[in-house]
Amino acid sequence: MNKTYEVFMREALKQAELGIYTTSPNPNVGCVVVKDGKVVGKGYHYQSGMPHAEVYALEMAGDNAIGADLYVTLEPCCHYGKTPPCINKIISSGIKKVVIGMLDPYLLVSGKGILALRNAGIDVVVGILENDSRELNLGFISRVTRSRPWVSVKLGVSLDGRTSLQNGTSRWITCQASREDVHKLRARSDLIITGSNTVCIDNPLLNVRGMSVNKSITKLIIDSKLRTEPDSLIYNQGDRVLLATNSKKTALKKFIDSLNIEIWDDISLNERVNLPLLFNKISKKEYSYVLVEAGMNLNGALLEHNLIDELILYMSPKILGTSSLGMFQIPEIENLENKFGFNFHSVNKLDKDIKIILRKNI
Amino acid sequence: MNKTYEVFMREALKQAELGIYTTSPNPNVGCVVVKDGKVVGKGYHYQSGMPHAEVYALEMAGDNAIGADLYVTLEPCCHYGKTPPCINKIISSGIKKVVIGMLDPYLLVSGKGILALRNAGIDVVVGILENDSRELNLGFISRVTRSRPWVSVKLGVSLDGRTSLQNGTSRWITCQASREDVHKLRARSDLIITGSNTVCIDNPLLNVRGMSVNKSITKLIIDSKLRTEPDSLIYNQGDRVLLATNSKKTALKKFIDSLNIEIWDDISLNERVNLPLLFNKISKKEYSYVLVEAGMNLNGALLEHNLIDELILYMSPKILGTSSLGMFQIPEIENLENKFGFNFHSVNKLDKDIKIILRKNI
Repeated sequence: MNKTYEVFMREALKQAELGIYTTSPNPNVGCVVVKDGKVVGKGYHYQSGMPHAEVYALEMAGDNAIGADLYVTLEPCCHYGKTPPCINKIISSGIKKVVIGMLDPYLLVSGKGILALRNAGIDVVVGILENDSRELNLGFISRVTRSRPWVSVKLGVSLDGRTSLQNGTSRWITCQASREDVHKLRARSDLIITGSNTVCIDNPLLNVRGMSVNKSITKLIIDSKLRTEPDSLIYNQGDRVLLATNSKKTALKKFIDSLNIEIWDDISLNERVNLPLLFNKISKKEYSYVLVEAGMNLNGALLEHNLIDELILYMSPKILGTSSLGMFQIPEIENLENKFGFNFHSVNKLDKDIKIILRKNI
Repeated sequence: MNKTYEVFMREALKQAELGIYTTSPNPNVGCVVVKDGKVVGKGYHYQSGMPHAEVYALEMAGDNAIGADLYVTLEPCCHYGKTPPCINKIISSGIKKVVIGMLDPYLLVSGKGILALRNAGIDVVVGILENDSRELNLGFISRVTRSRPWVSVKLGVSLDGRTSLQNGTSRWITCQASREDVHKLRARSDLIITGSNTVCIDNPLLNVRGMSVNKSITKLIIDSKLRTEPDSLIYNQGDRVLLATNSKKTALKKFIDSLNIEIWDDISLNERVNLPLLFNKISKKEYSYVLVEAGMNLNGALLEHNLIDELILYMSPKILGTSSLGMFQIPEIENLENKFGFNFHSVNKLDKDIKIILRKNI
């Protein structure tokens, strides 16, 4: 019985995945309607303001929904948002049983959808392939449960943990396949963060290239002392840029003149940008999934502030030696405990490189 | 047909593996005799001076060898060494077909065994699971074909490529499972090399512990300026120690007094030990498989001299920061080509750590 649940939940997850580049700030949700062992309706949530996955699946199923089972990766909503509650639609369609991947992580409504379905006499099963559903919504879950985004720090490193030569050269430590994979990471994220050093030294675009999906991603530059220049590529590529700074320099006027740039100067702490406050503000602005592509200073500061949820390392077999730049600038450590609490999550080969993902212990 | 060859060659490889802790300086060889699809004899080479794998397998097979197939991982020998040539025994036993993993890598005899078998009217097939047979004899092959040992450099590193805290602490960056695996590496090696820094700072034993196999492994300390002290643990544990030095200090007398220590002072170049010459001498002394457990100075020097065949990294998820010590001290690099030519060979999880093996491009 459980096997059947998983088979069809996997179909619903495949549907949900189709929205990974478009649903934010909403979660990824997929749905299938199953009658006599066959999928008779399917759908996914495409974008905020558009109908939910259940609506598409039930419309496709039509009268076949009567007596059928509905599989949905996230608990159906029971409240009026931008669209009417899915619960009503499910109940009125004649569905007999609802199989759910995970509860709504938003505490105020979590479990209410299930209750409403059960009150209407519908069988409900919860927690089928729950982890897979979570994986699709790390950003959304983090934002609604912790008031901060999911933060992935991406690093392209040599075998010996170096991100750049002493002369500043970092193009390219990793292989073509790794760099292409980074564009997928970017396309899935809502916000890309970097620091002033990276902008000054690398002058990167940090946009999405070489993919069928054409997505403009907001950037956030953390530049406490306003060391970046308005003519840097990142400020002039059309994508929206947030500039987090503590500077009151008159030079700031040059940035204010640009329509694409939004100044965030209300998050200072002494001379520095207050990182925990900054990430809370990012969450309030509904950026759920944040990708950091920065150097050892910002990476080290985020580590120290316990703000990194995931590390994504693209590791090359090259060796750059001790004169090259490292990954995390942090105060000297005194003992060898696992201070920052990461665990290896997965390792995959990417042509010449390996991709290593670590997650924070929860 | 090929499938059958592989099935029984795998049985022969399993036999060969039984000798991995004992055959050096001889190669690991395994053999099975197959009659009517059944193994009727098997054997492996246990130790120099003892009979070869084929002899054990044929003796076990007895009269069943008549008309049977013999599988052997390495080309049978056709010359008188410490034991008579296996070829004679195979021919006289009535074997019909011989299936061979790899040719004898020793050029003077390579192919001669096959020729002798064919001249005697025996079918010969060569190259079945050849790579697996090579893997079992990396050291032996290196020594007889390149006059230098196979050199594996082992490193226990943090996620950010650090081998020690600034205060010298390196116990323990890696987890228990990794450290146990290192003892297996040691047990398979013929010689363990370290540098004077490691002896002075860590005072290690570098012996084999916690394994059923009780093996005494020779150590080689590279100590150009004689900075180590005779009362260091490594000189006083019973295992043989080679001391490669350029020093003519009177202090050397203290080492000469020890029965366990052999001074190698004929390999100097200016003020330093001449590493290529040293490795040539190691090979002449019939050490085939060398494990290096050293710090960033010796590791860097071996890298620069192109003397590393394999890197074995035990990587922990801990982060130690840029103030900690790195993996390879080498002159500053100017561009990002893969200067040292390593490739990722395998990655495996070891409890909390991952084990990454890289090999040199050949």
